[in-house]
Amino acid sequence: MAKLVFIRHGQSEWNLKNLFTGWEDVNLSEQGVEEAKAAGRKLKEAGIEFDQAYTSVLTRAIKTLHFALEESGQLWVPEVKSWRLNERHYGALQGMDKKETADKYGEDQVHIWRRSYDTLPPLLSADDEGSAANDRRYADLDPRTIPGGENLKVTLERAIPFWEDHIAKDLRAGKNVIVAAHGNSLRALTKYIENISDEDIMDVEMATGQPVVYDLDRDLQITNKVKL
Amino acid sequence: MAKLVFIRHGQSEWNLKNLFTGWEDVNLSEQGVEEAKAAGRKLKEAGIEFDQAYTSVLTRAIKTLHFALEESGQLWVPEVKSWRLNERHYGALQGMDKKETADKYGEDQVHIWRRSYDTLPPLLSADDEGSAANDRRYADLDPRTIPGGENLKVTLERAIPFWEDHIAKDLRAGKNVIVAAHGNSLRALTKYIENISDEDIMDVEMATGQPVVYDLDRDLQITNKVKL
Repeated sequence: MAKLVFIRHGQSEWNLKNLFTGWEDVNLSEQGVEEAKAAGRKLKEAGIEFDQAYTSVLTRAIKTLHFALEESGQLWVPEVKSWRLNERHYGALQGMDKKETADKYGEDQVHIWRRSYDTLPPLLSADDEGSAANDRRYADLDPRTIPGGENLKVTLERAIPFWEDHIAKDLRAGKNVIVAAHGNSLRALTKYIENISDEDIMDVEMATGQPVVYDLDRDLQITNKVKL
Repeated sequence: MAKLVFIRHGQSEWNLKNLFTGWEDVNLSEQGVEEAKAAGRKLKEAGIEFDQAYTSVLTRAIKTLHFALEESGQLWVPEVKSWRLNERHYGALQGMDKKETADKYGEDQVHIWRRSYDTLPPLLSADDEGSAANDRRYADLDPRTIPGGENLKVTLERAIPFWEDHIAKDLRAGKNVIVAAHGNSLRALTKYIENISDEDIMDVEMATGQPVVYDLDRDLQITNKVKL
């Protein structure tokens, strides 16, 4: 038996401004910081002791992890960061206002970009200023691996190798694991471990800063799930 | 060529209270937080880009690393924590007031405990409440490895394996490395890489929150050293 905790980062500055964020490295808002600390207190009350922590390479998820671990007295837990846990890359929509985007492309198109499992957003090319290809944190990646935009399907496909190689391995060894990540990377992992259909997954919402606690057996079958 | 940065954690709550700290997991003081953030701004101004970060399993060093990385825009840098970078274990003196200890044991004895290279402090046994043997973060260690008290010599002997296996390996590969740790674990590493004698090392002081930047060639010979 092992425990797996998912926590979506607290509110970010761009959640607040209603902008498409994706791989843009924006900070937590003040409310986001408070949400992360509150999550840590809940984890402490629940008495969950972690052996391993995972997060993305984006500041808002990393800080959420650090606040949650510190408040629960476990900042010393080993931590690994991976781009594979990043938020879905929102392509050329990153940095755009959600309302203005709807005015420009129509509500229906924006709804498809946000809620379709396998429709890609308008893509960024590696030459675009905002491309992740220009960001030092992705310098070790093959340029073909760096996305110009992702849907949930692609997000899942690049997150699952990390799940298999790291998280699932730890859980099978009986380790308790916390994963601090993003709405869509956690949605992808949730789809995978709960076997949710392509249609149904788009309606699954993860609340910011709310720990979701799974109990898993050695075959990684879920024996309990609770939201703190 | 690679850069190596040492940073001693900012002022802790027990530095402020003048207590022996060692492996006690005390927090940064408000001043300590400001020192860590200021260090991050200096690293940013100096334009130092890290590939790897190392720290101890003690909160004051971990938080110093996080503040310094965040302020320099590099919170995403991979981080490994190890007990081998912990502060010198101060044995049964941990938690005692430095002045009261001097009143009880004499100034001369306390001076020896603090400044002798190879004199051990009064030891804690594994049965003592404050022993690291009762702390979950050391649960993977063989009980014989967990110290009941250390001098600088022992601190060096347990820190150097980490230097060789991780830090030196990265530097030889040309990676820029930051090590956020403690007065005595950094003094031990400084002794080792600068070839300082057992006598002279006890007079080397590391200022809290001040980055020390080394340029090293592929043979790990120091070509430059500057304090920011």
